[in-house]
Amino acid sequence: MSQNTDAAHTLTDSAEGSSAVADAATAVSRLAQKARAASRVLARADRNWKDRGLLAIAASLDANRAAVIKANAKDLEAGRAKGTTEALLDRLKLTDERVDGLISALQELAGLPDPVGTVLRGQTLPNGLRLRQIYVPMGVIGAIYEARPNVTVDIAGLALKSGNAVLLRGGSAASHSNLALLALIRDALESVGLPADAVASVDDWGRDGADAMMGARGEIDVLIPRGGRELIQRVVSTASVPVIETGEGNVHIYLDESASAKMAVPILLNAKTQRPSVCNTVETLLLHANATAATEVLAALHRAGVRLHVDARAKAMAGQTPTIDAVESDWDTEYMDLDLSVAVVDDLDGAMRHIRAHSTGHTEAILTNDLAHAERFIAEVDSAAVIVNASTRFTDGGQLGLGAEVGISTQKMHARGPMGLRELTTTKWIVQGDGHVRS
Amino acid sequence: MSQNTDAAHTLTDSAEGSSAVADAATAVSRLAQKARAASRVLARADRNWKDRGLLAIAASLDANRAAVIKANAKDLEAGRAKGTTEALLDRLKLTDERVDGLISALQELAGLPDPVGTVLRGQTLPNGLRLRQIYVPMGVIGAIYEARPNVTVDIAGLALKSGNAVLLRGGSAASHSNLALLALIRDALESVGLPADAVASVDDWGRDGADAMMGARGEIDVLIPRGGRELIQRVVSTASVPVIETGEGNVHIYLDESASAKMAVPILLNAKTQRPSVCNTVETLLLHANATAATEVLAALHRAGVRLHVDARAKAMAGQTPTIDAVESDWDTEYMDLDLSVAVVDDLDGAMRHIRAHSTGHTEAILTNDLAHAERFIAEVDSAAVIVNASTRFTDGGQLGLGAEVGISTQKMHARGPMGLRELTTTKWIVQGDGHVRS
Repeated sequence: MSQNTDAAHTLTDSAEGSSAVADAATAVSRLAQKARAASRVLARADRNWKDRGLLAIAASLDANRAAVIKANAKDLEAGRAKGTTEALLDRLKLTDERVDGLISALQELAGLPDPVGTVLRGQTLPNGLRLRQIYVPMGVIGAIYEARPNVTVDIAGLALKSGNAVLLRGGSAASHSNLALLALIRDALESVGLPADAVASVDDWGRDGADAMMGARGEIDVLIPRGGRELIQRVVSTASVPVIETGEGNVHIYLDESASAKMAVPILLNAKTQRPSVCNTVETLLLHANATAATEVLAALHRAGVRLHVDARAKAMAGQTPTIDAVESDWDTEYMDLDLSVAVVDDLDGAMRHIRAHSTGHTEAILTNDLAHAERFIAEVDSAAVIVNASTRFTDGGQLGLGAEVGISTQKMHARGPMGLRELTTTKWIVQGDGHVRS
Repeated sequence: MSQNTDAAHTLTDSAEGSSAVADAATAVSRLAQKARAASRVLARADRNWKDRGLLAIAASLDANRAAVIKANAKDLEAGRAKGTTEALLDRLKLTDERVDGLISALQELAGLPDPVGTVLRGQTLPNGLRLRQIYVPMGVIGAIYEARPNVTVDIAGLALKSGNAVLLRGGSAASHSNLALLALIRDALESVGLPADAVASVDDWGRDGADAMMGARGEIDVLIPRGGRELIQRVVSTASVPVIETGEGNVHIYLDESASAKMAVPILLNAKTQRPSVCNTVETLLLHANATAATEVLAALHRAGVRLHVDARAKAMAGQTPTIDAVESDWDTEYMDLDLSVAVVDDLDGAMRHIRAHSTGHTEAILTNDLAHAERFIAEVDSAAVIVNASTRFTDGGQLGLGAEVGISTQKMHARGPMGLRELTTTKWIVQGDGHVRS
């Protein structure tokens, strides 16, 4: 254990017995200042140096996997004692295989190009002034997430590669796992000469720590909440630090009159059943009133175990296929499970009206053979990703070729859709003259 | 006057006698919904159509200049009666010459390329999926500004060109001017078949209208406050709608040991005296303790009428030049007048420490002949614009070749530095397949 880890322990001790909000704010402010100092080193670190840091973390994870899994077992045990659901325990769990996954993600990250220093645009002006606008790190990122220890490694790696320091709030249910991972990450950074303070945790201050992060405007440059709707909405509505909202996906597929069952069935099965718990899975199917493929699509979904929540017209189109009567809230529900709401619309305009009323702006798709309809859907649907004749599961940083993914932004500011490393940077104008004055 | 203007008057009447916050929120929400509908037309309007709208506004301004100036005279009269300062009255005033300026700005805007539809990146993936990430309008912009009627025309033009609808809150001191300009703009839009609701004002609801805009998350996509520090800070700390923070510039110039007076004197005079009231004017001069040019620079600034607020060491370097003793608050003061604070630092590191402590992240410059110092300043100073051997007055959209300028962002999210039309857009991923599913 390095002295920085010891320092973190000392902070813990001094905070013991006091959970006052003001104490948390002071402590988080101090951590943020240390992170700011570390971020200055990271901002100037070249890609090779940062990649050595990533590989050192990967190697340390490999060497210390037994200790990490042992720490994780304590969290699992505590979770079981508290009656945590099996689904949540599964998200919390680290196995040899999952540690392998984290290691290869870090190695892949080291293989990606570095956005920092890339020239976005530049020119020499008529007066001879040289201009460049380059990507530079944000500075200090804050990450607030739920009890998924893999996010600790993931976000630390993404921040490091993009030249940012990061403050983590990882949820008390994963505290043993996160403490072990944090110590290992900080030691690995130091082993290659990078500042350990580039990755720090506010978990010692619990929810007060999260609140302090949200209020640290000017000390933390951007907050990234990762998790369920409740967590994200709490951060968005509370934080004075700018937030990038990620992940909520009430995703629609519109089956147009002209789409064939041959194309529609595999796309719907893929979009709903391949991984129902993620944000790019389809939640509502809109059927054109005369869609020839409708009955076959509904039957195929049912055979695949999907529960169909239908309106009256869709019920008629389902024929022999068993259905559940939809209620109004179904149109706004992100099931994240083998459930799908199904509505019939009169035409493309009806589909787009439904989407405008219920979409979270993540991903919408049209299945059609009509060129004019495809073009209108592309032009008029106001979502981060608009898809024609393909599965909504493609809205994913890896699938779209961005490399590592930070999350999927459903807001319009700064980043929209899958966020890669570049979205963790900002820009800086560099202007060079020889005594130039403005006339 | 069009029926839309009449509708606006009807809204005024129905709101009379009731300034309840809830009423304002309802009314602003209704305006935002109309603006959203209009924004869908604008988002699909091609450049030629939008440019016709801009030129129609310009022509109408030209044809109705007498009426506009007459309306403005009422605001000026009311301002004088209330004892408004001459400086504020000057900002409020519209003259024939200033109307000419607005007309040519609109004509220039029509000549600029349209960011909407530009492909930011794109590729065909190995599986044959076609990807494009394109710039699209934000949707509905909110602008909150002080009593400067020129901003009404300016922001309406920028919003139109970038395909956005806009809600305006222009300050009651300019209400007659803004009402005349708004009617003219909406009529001009209708005359080319564009929706009048693309430009609307919440001024009828006064401060409640501004507050309602700040709370209209989901209905307004981004808020742009334009004005003094107090206004901007109020919006930033109050709004739940994402804000782009613009304009505050506590700008520094560091005079390094090696810089010649021959280069430094014209740059300092330009940066301080050309237009002291704008945000890219220098507010603090940092002198290297051995800067050979220091005494001459201070003498030249004094001769140009600049009041020098100096620390003890700078006082010594000023020699015979009269100075004022600086107080602690001087280092954080944006004078926007012929005042300059002057501090002596031991070296480049001292200068960068001072900048870190006091900068607003707008623009900082170094005057030097030392390459290593220039490189370190570029790499380590964390501001929207970093300038070497040129005047800070170059941090300006027009000067940097961006065309029209929305403002200068001092935040890191979304846009940093001078904001052009592109910064009023977001992006959309378009994914086209032929039945593609994710494997």
